[in-house]
Amino acid sequence: MAVQQLNVAVIGYAFMGRIHTAGWAQAAKFFGTPARVTHVVGRNAENARAFADDFDVPNVLTDWRDAVADPDIHVIDVCTPGDSHVDIAIAALAAGKHVLCEKPLANSVEGAERMVAAAEAAREAGVRSMVGFSYRRVPALAYAKRLVDEGRIGEIRHIRALYLQDWIADPEFPLVWRLDKDAAGSGALGDVGAHIIDLATFLTGQRLTGVSALTETFVKTRPKLASQTGGLTATGSEERGEVTVDDAAVWIGRTDGGALATFEATRFAVGRKNAMRIELNGSKGSVAFDFERMNELEFFDFTEPAVEGGFRRILVTDPDHPYAGAWWPPGHGLGYEHTFNNEVADFAAAITEGRDPEPSFAEGLAVQRVLQAVEESAAHEARWTTL
Amino acid sequence: MAVQQLNVAVIGYAFMGRIHTAGWAQAAKFFGTPARVTHVVGRNAENARAFADDFDVPNVLTDWRDAVADPDIHVIDVCTPGDSHVDIAIAALAAGKHVLCEKPLANSVEGAERMVAAAEAAREAGVRSMVGFSYRRVPALAYAKRLVDEGRIGEIRHIRALYLQDWIADPEFPLVWRLDKDAAGSGALGDVGAHIIDLATFLTGQRLTGVSALTETFVKTRPKLASQTGGLTATGSEERGEVTVDDAAVWIGRTDGGALATFEATRFAVGRKNAMRIELNGSKGSVAFDFERMNELEFFDFTEPAVEGGFRRILVTDPDHPYAGAWWPPGHGLGYEHTFNNEVADFAAAITEGRDPEPSFAEGLAVQRVLQAVEESAAHEARWTTL
Amino acid sequence: MAVQQLNVAVIGYAFMGRIHTAGWAQAAKFFGTPARVTHVVGRNAENARAFADDFDVPNVLTDWRDAVADPDIHVIDVCTPGDSHVDIAIAALAAGKHVLCEKPLANSVEGAERMVAAAEAAREAGVRSMVGFSYRRVPALAYAKRLVDEGRIGEIRHIRALYLQDWIADPEFPLVWRLDKDAAGSGALGDVGAHIIDLATFLTGQRLTGVSALTETFVKTRPKLASQTGGLTATGSEERGEVTVDDAAVWIGRTDGGALATFEATRFAVGRKNAMRIELNGSKGSVAFDFERMNELEFFDFTEPAVEGGFRRILVTDPDHPYAGAWWPPGHGLGYEHTFNNEVADFAAAITEGRDPEPSFAEGLAVQRVLQAVEESAAHEARWTTL
Amino acid sequence: MAVQQLNVAVIGYAFMGRIHTAGWAQAAKFFGTPARVTHVVGRNAENARAFADDFDVPNVLTDWRDAVADPDIHVIDVCTPGDSHVDIAIAALAAGKHVLCEKPLANSVEGAERMVAAAEAAREAGVRSMVGFSYRRVPALAYAKRLVDEGRIGEIRHIRALYLQDWIADPEFPLVWRLDKDAAGSGALGDVGAHIIDLATFLTGQRLTGVSALTETFVKTRPKLASQTGGLTATGSEERGEVTVDDAAVWIGRTDGGALATFEATRFAVGRKNAMRIELNGSKGSVAFDFERMNELEFFDFTEPAVEGGFRRILVTDPDHPYAGAWWPPGHGLGYEHTFNNEVADFAAAITEGRDPEPSFAEGLAVQRVLQAVEESAAHEARWTTL
Repeated sequence: MAVQQLNVAVIGYAFMGRIHTAGWAQAAKFFGTPARVTHVVGRNAENARAFADDFDVPNVLTDWRDAVADPDIHVIDVCTPGDSHVDIAIAALAAGKHVLCEKPLANSVEGAERMVAAAEAAREAGVRSMVGFSYRRVPALAYAKRLVDEGRIGEIRHIRALYLQDWIADPEFPLVWRLDKDAAGSGALGDVGAHIIDLATFLTGQRLTGVSALTETFVKTRPKLASQTGGLTATGSEERGEVTVDDAAVWIGRTDGGALATFEATRFAVGRKNAMRIELNGSKGSVAFDFERMNELEFFDFTEPAVEGGFRRILVTDPDHPYAGAWWPPGHGLGYEHTFNNEVADFAAAITEGRDPEPSFAEGLAVQRVLQAVEESAAHEARWTTL
Repeated sequence: MAVQQLNVAVIGYAFMGRIHTAGWAQAAKFFGTPARVTHVVGRNAENARAFADDFDVPNVLTDWRDAVADPDIHVIDVCTPGDSHVDIAIAALAAGKHVLCEKPLANSVEGAERMVAAAEAAREAGVRSMVGFSYRRVPALAYAKRLVDEGRIGEIRHIRALYLQDWIADPEFPLVWRLDKDAAGSGALGDVGAHIIDLATFLTGQRLTGVSALTETFVKTRPKLASQTGGLTATGSEERGEVTVDDAAVWIGRTDGGALATFEATRFAVGRKNAMRIELNGSKGSVAFDFERMNELEFFDFTEPAVEGGFRRILVTDPDHPYAGAWWPPGHGLGYEHTFNNEVADFAAAITEGRDPEPSFAEGLAVQRVLQAVEESAAHEARWTTL
Repeated sequence: MAVQQLNVAVIGYAFMGRIHTAGWAQAAKFFGTPARVTHVVGRNAENARAFADDFDVPNVLTDWRDAVADPDIHVIDVCTPGDSHVDIAIAALAAGKHVLCEKPLANSVEGAERMVAAAEAAREAGVRSMVGFSYRRVPALAYAKRLVDEGRIGEIRHIRALYLQDWIADPEFPLVWRLDKDAAGSGALGDVGAHIIDLATFLTGQRLTGVSALTETFVKTRPKLASQTGGLTATGSEERGEVTVDDAAVWIGRTDGGALATFEATRFAVGRKNAMRIELNGSKGSVAFDFERMNELEFFDFTEPAVEGGFRRILVTDPDHPYAGAWWPPGHGLGYEHTFNNEVADFAAAITEGRDPEPSFAEGLAVQRVLQAVEESAAHEARWTTL
Repeated sequence: MAVQQLNVAVIGYAFMGRIHTAGWAQAAKFFGTPARVTHVVGRNAENARAFADDFDVPNVLTDWRDAVADPDIHVIDVCTPGDSHVDIAIAALAAGKHVLCEKPLANSVEGAERMVAAAEAAREAGVRSMVGFSYRRVPALAYAKRLVDEGRIGEIRHIRALYLQDWIADPEFPLVWRLDKDAAGSGALGDVGAHIIDLATFLTGQRLTGVSALTETFVKTRPKLASQTGGLTATGSEERGEVTVDDAAVWIGRTDGGALATFEATRFAVGRKNAMRIELNGSKGSVAFDFERMNELEFFDFTEPAVEGGFRRILVTDPDHPYAGAWWPPGHGLGYEHTFNNEVADFAAAITEGRDPEPSFAEGLAVQRVLQAVEESAAHEARWTTL
């Protein structure tokens, strides 16, 4: 079958833009993904040009509208902060472009709803859309889902999801855009909490029916930003400004499948760098995962004799594990960026094969609704807030 | 100094009675504790006699009132289920006996309040009382407290406390007394949740100011009890009865020190046998503990250069670690029962030295109030419940 | 059945004497072992008396010959340094006493051979003897042996045994008896290397057929001993003396079952406190153990589908695990001293039931022969030395 | 500065060829490495073409001599089995091409010596050469070396290096080229043992002065190869052939710095997929590493107070860690292939800056000499063999 080559425009070239652009190139090599990044879009032409040169991207644009208007571009990959997602994605879908949009889908439920409507309209015309919850493409987590789907965990009783970081625990860390409510929507909640909300649903197929939540901003003012030096690093100025987002959020909830769920998202767990952890306990087994050891899944099989039962540390690098066959031999682990490589390969495959990719914008909206419920509950003394 | 030998009567000889009785004997050997168990009290004379023979206890009584009335007994060690604690402890204190009472202090706040009043009255006469939150005597946790007290953790932002077990995850496990509200007061909440409530306060010196909670009974009916075969093992009959306590409880809260706290107590985390875990994240460091690896404390020092920072696994077996000097060389770990050995040694030392031991009955009452608040919140859709 | 109460005399009251004496008392409680320590023997009457008082031992002797001669003593438990084992054990056996002798059996093969001859002669008269390789009584290791015996590991290819400590890594640590060839026989080799030699045979049922070895004394002189302050702690004087034993030994070998084996015993692995580690790799599975986490056994089942295979961490605390049923519920771990509690219970049970206990003196001799072969090989540039 | 773009020809496109080719492209993106793979060389033109298409390589050659003769190619990257290294590398160097040669440098010491001579001759003309011990570019190991160099480990006493795999533990796994002495030189020894020999020297700066070794081929015959399906996977035919290489090798040795060293290389450690482990114990500290957790380094600082000492798990993902700054934020780990990305970036940087890259061919020869000594010792009953 002659597969059309997909031309991709990546909007944004910071942390997410870099990793997406590299991801498309790696997917072409390791999955034979018929796609290439032909355009990068950035407001600062010089910086965008430098990035494009390093990342072997032929064309640079300074306005995303030009990418949306270009008939030779098939895919718009949205890697900007959350406040611009709605406009870009809706315009791109209207122009018949397939859209991969970084999470969170939008900074508000209302925006996300409009994106879903646009995606559903475009879908009629065979236009595909996906939200970038990249952790679904961690082999260990995709394998955990397989275990759940195969009934190895049984009826789920507990979901325990944490996303622990510490990159702003120093009170002198400056006010990057992720600490600004206008740009980011919320703090740890929307940034990393969104991931664990999506994962809980991805793994269990269950949705939260209500939550009770608390949020906190431990450090109220910080130096204003002098310059961003990396994905999560920056230098500050002498002037201080107000932190307008949460530093941490904790919430408990129930799911439509009868499970109790606990969640925690924080940027103040000193010593935890990127500890995205999720554990499920069911009637037949348990799985546990920590992104700091992303090539491992712990699995406990409660149907085995007690005497030989134990959490087994599965190195999820076997050719029969999800995604692993495209990469290296057993024991030769993958890294963070592979979640993006796998993700864009999946997205392109869905486009090519005429399927709807997952997670859909509707999934992104569902996450957004949980984020909103968490914020609402936290604003009212942990009041029970239904979904 | 000639120290008076303390004669101890242990009330109850099941799981807790056994471990306490052995603990007094070990404390005499390894701490030189001037005490011995002279009496064991059990309603079934024959069984109590057999236990006394095995455990080298000279005297057996079938009514705790006789122990309270015996002028040669100095200490009453209450190891019965929670529903009898109030009567025994108050009578013993009134009779001038020092009282060590297993946790939870009582099955109700009201009962616990009466016990505190009795303890405070007796205290005037030099009579000592303590509640048996034995995990305070885990060397790793006592050392964690030392680190907090020395300022190594700094201002505490997160308390994350879990007590995960799975001993009743099998729906055919029978209705032991711990699943009966009348005898046990509550389920996972009072049994193991009480421990993590106490520990959070012990380690941080902070108290919860409010909670929002959910509880759940996953398995509603179970076989009635045929016989109890061990501390946490039993066989069932063919008839079924209702489970009247919670299987699991989750709650979030705030402390008077400004920390966010999450708690989970469950008997349905399959694969987790006795995973009492607590982690504190502060402005200067973090500590993390899991009872399944009770000889280890993980400590992260945020004041170190980032490049060489990492959670260090401290084997808490050095002579300079709490309690460890009384036992074996570094690396030669302790077991579960040592928490009791250390506990009774501390209690006896306080008596002998005329000090008030910790945790006091008032601490036990404080825990009871949190348990009540959790239950109340859970009964009202996770309503915020202040303390 | 009326079982005769065994009266035990413990010879020595330092590290090993303490733990044995406490062990007999605990075994009586938890295994119903019909034995009690009636005598402790120590050359310094005052210190021995103090120990006896603390450990509830009625009688004190200052010469082991008096214990051997006492008709009311049934068991001699030899807890002295290795240089006295031969005389005490042979005399005791000749007097019809059952003998438990700490490892290493003797400081020389010749001494051990005489002990074996004495044991075999006494055996005719129903007198039992055992050498104290206490690690055989770690539940996790006894369970590992069960897995081997059940064929779960298959044909064994690799034995990897290490005993890593660091208690003399500081060059100012003084010359305790364990660093004196006359008293101790050898250094790390005989002290901790003996354990891993015995364990390798215990677990696999295979014996080394030849070894190639290196030994090293990293620190040649040390302060002479001022006072011993604990099992592995001491203070030094200003004068220095020569270290006459090895600090470390490494050796490789082959077994009569076709396995390759590697061994390492050292007191200079800084950070490793009591890391006795053993791993077996077979055609069907693997087991791995580290004493620093003594309640855990890692087991890999190679017969499972690769996709779900992984080392499982078994908490060896289930009632169906060896020894565990006598102690606490699942997840409530044991400590170092339980290996001794379990050991004396096994020894007494063998006596009572008229069986030969394991490991026999002949096993102790076999270990001694390996130690000698290692020393001989090391003395000749790692020359291959057959057994 | 205008840096010349380096044109690279990769010889071979199997496991190593794939990872190198992808590595050059990633290095260009993340390190700004001025190099691109312009040619791939493979004997099967069709397969090579398919690879080149997937990996975005413009040109395909079927004879490496054509690459060596092409004046537009600056770098020859040798990714073929060991038996062809000598010819390719020497010809390439003679033609003035910089050469990166996969390990082991050659299948014999004699071949390696000729390569070193060629490299040294070429060096006069500014031609660079390097052998591909890629594990030197694991950030955790490069950081371990920094700790050693800074004196944090002190005088090194123990080197403990293992490379454990299990990919041929199934006796029906077929006779791939890695099990053929002619193609591979040796088995586990040369394949993975070479890595740990190099690493031990890299980390400590010390060299083995003698070894005593055993090797074993547990499975003597295997199905002949039907087809190679991946880097370490293949299918077999019905005919069987002889295995001509070792399955496992163990050896002990001494270094010129006074350390005792133990080594083990095996493909029969079932459950261990790619467990390249190395631990150093010194007078001031220890480091420990396991490639199955490649983003972590364990470090023990013996100069700290004993009470707070412990192996710390450093996530080697901080911007100040080696290589890490080029990649992702802290806690966002790297994978196996990054060692190659880092390696080619280093190699190109050395070329561009006119420096000699490390490890040189002379280092590769030094490894080869150890391999030869190990084989010689093993062939003579573990005879001590000096280097």
